[in-house]
Amino acid sequence: MNPPANITDPLILFMPSGKRGRFPKGTPILDAARQLGVYVESVCGGRATCGRCQVEVQEGHFAKHKIISSNEHISPIGPKEARYAEKRELKPGRRLSCSALIEGDLVIDVPQDTVINAQVVRKDADTRVIERNPATRICYVEVEEPDMHKPSGDLDRLKAALQRDWDYGRLEADAHLLPQVQSILRQGKWAVTAAVHDDDDTDAARIIALWPGLKNEAYGIACDIGSTTIAMHLVSLLSGRVAASAGTSNPQIRFGEDLMSRVSYVMMNPDGREAMTKAVRDAISTLIDKVAVEGGVQREDILDAVFVGNPIMHHLFLGIDPTELGGAPFALAVSGAVKAHASDLGLRLNPGARLYMLPCIAGHVGADAAAVALSEGPHRQDEMMLIVDVGTNAEIVLGNRERVVAASSPTGPAFEGAEISGGQRAAPGAIERVRIDPGTLEPRFRVIGSELWSDEPGFAESVAATGVTGICGSGIIEVIAEMFLTGIISEDGVIDGALAAKSPRIVANGRTFSYVLTESEPRITITQNDVRAIQLAKAALYAGIKLLMEKQGVTGVDVIRFAGAFGSFIDPKYAMALGLIPDCELDKVSAVGNAAGTGARMALLNRMHRREIEETVRRIEKIETALEPKFQEHFVHAMALPNKVDPFVKLGQQVPLPQRKSIDAGGVAGDGSPRRRSREERAARRARP
Amino acid sequence: MNPPANITDPLILFMPSGKRGRFPKGTPILDAARQLGVYVESVCGGRATCGRCQVEVQEGHFAKHKIISSNEHISPIGPKEARYAEKRELKPGRRLSCSALIEGDLVIDVPQDTVINAQVVRKDADTRVIERNPATRICYVEVEEPDMHKPSGDLDRLKAALQRDWDYGRLEADAHLLPQVQSILRQGKWAVTAAVHDDDDTDAARIIALWPGLKNEAYGIACDIGSTTIAMHLVSLLSGRVAASAGTSNPQIRFGEDLMSRVSYVMMNPDGREAMTKAVRDAISTLIDKVAVEGGVQREDILDAVFVGNPIMHHLFLGIDPTELGGAPFALAVSGAVKAHASDLGLRLNPGARLYMLPCIAGHVGADAAAVALSEGPHRQDEMMLIVDVGTNAEIVLGNRERVVAASSPTGPAFEGAEISGGQRAAPGAIERVRIDPGTLEPRFRVIGSELWSDEPGFAESVAATGVTGICGSGIIEVIAEMFLTGIISEDGVIDGALAAKSPRIVANGRTFSYVLTESEPRITITQNDVRAIQLAKAALYAGIKLLMEKQGVTGVDVIRFAGAFGSFIDPKYAMALGLIPDCELDKVSAVGNAAGTGARMALLNRMHRREIEETVRRIEKIETALEPKFQEHFVHAMALPNKVDPFVKLGQQVPLPQRKSIDAGGVAGDGSPRRRSREERAARRARP
Repeated sequence: MNPPANITDPLILFMPSGKRGRFPKGTPILDAARQLGVYVESVCGGRATCGRCQVEVQEGHFAKHKIISSNEHISPIGPKEARYAEKRELKPGRRLSCSALIEGDLVIDVPQDTVINAQVVRKDADTRVIERNPATRICYVEVEEPDMHKPSGDLDRLKAALQRDWDYGRLEADAHLLPQVQSILRQGKWAVTAAVHDDDDTDAARIIALWPGLKNEAYGIACDIGSTTIAMHLVSLLSGRVAASAGTSNPQIRFGEDLMSRVSYVMMNPDGREAMTKAVRDAISTLIDKVAVEGGVQREDILDAVFVGNPIMHHLFLGIDPTELGGAPFALAVSGAVKAHASDLGLRLNPGARLYMLPCIAGHVGADAAAVALSEGPHRQDEMMLIVDVGTNAEIVLGNRERVVAASSPTGPAFEGAEISGGQRAAPGAIERVRIDPGTLEPRFRVIGSELWSDEPGFAESVAATGVTGICGSGIIEVIAEMFLTGIISEDGVIDGALAAKSPRIVANGRTFSYVLTESEPRITITQNDVRAIQLAKAALYAGIKLLMEKQGVTGVDVIRFAGAFGSFIDPKYAMALGLIPDCELDKVSAVGNAAGTGARMALLNRMHRREIEETVRRIEKIETALEPKFQEHFVHAMALPNKVDPFVKLGQQVPLPQRKSIDAGGVAGDGSPRRRSREERAARRARP
Repeated sequence: MNPPANITDPLILFMPSGKRGRFPKGTPILDAARQLGVYVESVCGGRATCGRCQVEVQEGHFAKHKIISSNEHISPIGPKEARYAEKRELKPGRRLSCSALIEGDLVIDVPQDTVINAQVVRKDADTRVIERNPATRICYVEVEEPDMHKPSGDLDRLKAALQRDWDYGRLEADAHLLPQVQSILRQGKWAVTAAVHDDDDTDAARIIALWPGLKNEAYGIACDIGSTTIAMHLVSLLSGRVAASAGTSNPQIRFGEDLMSRVSYVMMNPDGREAMTKAVRDAISTLIDKVAVEGGVQREDILDAVFVGNPIMHHLFLGIDPTELGGAPFALAVSGAVKAHASDLGLRLNPGARLYMLPCIAGHVGADAAAVALSEGPHRQDEMMLIVDVGTNAEIVLGNRERVVAASSPTGPAFEGAEISGGQRAAPGAIERVRIDPGTLEPRFRVIGSELWSDEPGFAESVAATGVTGICGSGIIEVIAEMFLTGIISEDGVIDGALAAKSPRIVANGRTFSYVLTESEPRITITQNDVRAIQLAKAALYAGIKLLMEKQGVTGVDVIRFAGAFGSFIDPKYAMALGLIPDCELDKVSAVGNAAGTGARMALLNRMHRREIEETVRRIEKIETALEPKFQEHFVHAMALPNKVDPFVKLGQQVPLPQRKSIDAGGVAGDGSPRRRSREERAARRARP
């Protein structure tokens, strides 16, 4: 604080950050917030016109043992604030922090919703509160008129005003603004709102957009470019509010279903890279239209854009040939964060809009994994956190405040339903939940798009639109876990042909056996090959996790986060039952959905999160599984169901089966019926030696 | 220096800068140069391959009273240097400063020509030596190959190499390079040359271009956009050598001959601004082709571009509406230096090429005047320097190290030959020199394009191609000065009709008289109106100068520099005779030609010159003549020939006529014949009271 606080000065506590300090009476609350580093938005620069700096004055109860009404601790509403309240509405208890002066101890609540757009909170975006300190801010200023005695240019007087009112240091202006500054200043009668991009304090800040008069909104997009799906949020840079969200299929799918087939396409076709870059950029452009329409926002009001994606998506979006990522040493063309103009990549937003891509961690661990790490924050906490994002590869991050390690395990696409005889991507019609009666070995299941189990009345009608089309990743995990729990497959993964005598569900299939999940067309069976594919995938995942745990010198983890689409469909308990993930308190295992999208939003709304993830990625130790001899060893051991001889997974033959019990305790898929419990208890008993 | 120098360490003196310091034995000369801030170019980063860092080792004569061969004071040529000498030639006495180590006291001469391109020195560019420290440098580096253990990207390893070998701090790369980095690194087998733009140390430096292997050339352009003529130099950024120069007419002339008519055109025509911007950019693009062809340089090898021009040219080039500059308060849209990408203004150079425009001083005193100030450097010296650049307005700068003031005087276009009955621009066929015989009042003259006087044999043949087409600015100055010196016009500018009786050259023209300069077609006469126009122009110029002298509190100036086309044609002595400029030692008055172009080259070749002129322009005190009541007073007094009641101009009736004499003494136009002298002595005598 400046000047130094006096112990007799009022004490101000800002919530929810908890930051506090003493300030002389008469200090505007906004100034106190800035001095303490509490981010309170303000567009008009303390003129009581934009209304962005509203705070709630909670109480003034610090004074020694006296309860004092907060009214005595804060200046009364003055004429400017009253004018604002009259014109724009000011809810009871709220004050404009630029105009309200400290008169005594105060607890100030900084609303994390926007003041103006507070009503709408979307359910489809993570509702996490992100502290705002965006790289792009909008600043209202009143500029000096031209004066023959001081012949500095319009732009130069605009810069001076921004420096004076907004504490910017060196300022430059985008070239596209040069022809416009003159007329915008005159149109606004020397009062304008500038968008200033100041990602890095060291560099000169840049004026990237300019409007006459007071402009009171600015937006950004946060976009996760997945191999399968592209997801986008349109976010208010002023309030943090998600104005709209939308997703679309990645049109690159027509060049190749999975990542490696897209790389092959580039290798085989001279124009392949260009075609795929165009495809993804076009899809993103269409998505921008979609969120803009849904959010009622003009494209020109979008000033910043953050993108994440796996390394191949990252490269193709940037127009970089991904071929090098298809083979050792899996060399990234660019690993650090990318800063560019949105227009450099052909995106039509505001002409001055900027673009930021999070850094990639390694050749197989991309900016999406970095965004997940930023969202979940292993580096921000003491607990040992495991983050698993399963796609064609599983990206694994393990660490805490002290140290973070990361790797990618070559799980293959089995978890996504590929390479599985009846497999398909998670889409309506796909089987996503399976239970097998341990007595009869009869299955029941649920499909995406219906709330009913297959043995419940009305099921057939409820899936009439799609039918039952196949089985997706989470269904495969569950059916194989259930087959194991009911003894259909042994711990080394062999389907027990002897059971064919007991159940018509077990059928011969050449020299091996299959389990018939559905009889009707399409007939969906789990073949011995399917079991092998899942064994290989889960062995790869588990071996990767084991490797990282060894690097960390730990035998258990405190927290597990499943990220991504697979993670949000999979039941963590089945994942644990099958040995995909190590032992962990069940309530410490959670699916975090599109954490990559959340990480992207964080980077959009707070430039310090950009520095945080850049620094974290530099610090993360990258483990290349292919170079680690122990990986093969772990892999072989992890082929067994759940896992062989493992000091920290207490499943299997060596110890009682708390995991299997915990499935019961947690109530799988919400149906915690007594019948289910006893059935699984029987399974657990049978699995013991 | 670091570590601190020991008094027993060898003393190294760099010439021509005179910088010196002590360095431990074994220090490479290049390192010593860098520590002292002596700019020695190096592309290969001390690998003895680029040959750019050559120096001449002059002598080693500091050792106490002993003459020691320099060979003992410098390390012998090692294998790397020998290999360079074998492959690329190393002249006797020259050493690669990256490889030659200090062994004793040395005088090192840093050649200011380029080592590789030293042969060509163009006569049409100022041959001034500019210390090089360009904003854009090219840097050869060897980049680490990708490594699975350290999965940083290609670009990130390139940055690391540049940081390691070239001491760059934060580095960013232009977005257009992202798709190329990968293949260029592989093409160069991990050895590449990067162009790094680092205009301002505070900002992150930027990689703007990249080539496989060693690239040993890089160019920039320096361009002066005049209202009439656009002049361009193509300059090696490595050596400072001017590879080519060219000029072209400003095609905006078709929209309006002078500045104000171009502003009117913009005001009258909705697309006028756009059309003029396109015209000037197209002309510049054509000029780039011209200098590139002449210099044998690819457009892609041009990495930086500096532009200067008067405020209206500056605005139109940047695409800014100049209408505001057409009337009070003459508000510039942009006064500070402009930094942009060349491509932002549609210039096709290297895709990463940058552009810099010098700051404008005031609404009438543009970036061209700033460039002249940078070139002539009043702010660098103790003497009081007057710089005059005459165009439609006269831009006047007066000052020294302590203080610099500047103004623009509304001279109108008379000095350029406009508004003069027989006037024309300086072009072949135009009369540029005039002498009048004081006895007969018969004139003789010279025209542009011929070396002969009109009364010399062969004159008619020598001008047959063009004929005598009119009279240009310098011709008008001389004829009016001569008319005054021969008594044809009085001190108040009236043509003496009484002389019509004495000479057929004096003819009635309505109620006034004219002087007939040529009888043949076109008949060129100097009318009373012509004299009035020149009186008004010179009064405006002189009043502006007087005003600035008063601001500076001086009654005389030490140095006068005439810049621009008018300045290079005009004979300073006639300018002084007519009272355009104040009294000054004749040998301190000089025409500096295209000083604006020289200033542009300085900004191109040394980023510190950019900071210097930005700082100087901020410091320059701008005087708006229209706001100064004294200006009118000075103007009225200066209508007289040469000037009325003036403390520092000792011309005219009040005092003897040193200026008129000094015209004789100096030998006008190089013809110092006795006949001329006596004639002018007579004139001088007659002019005395």
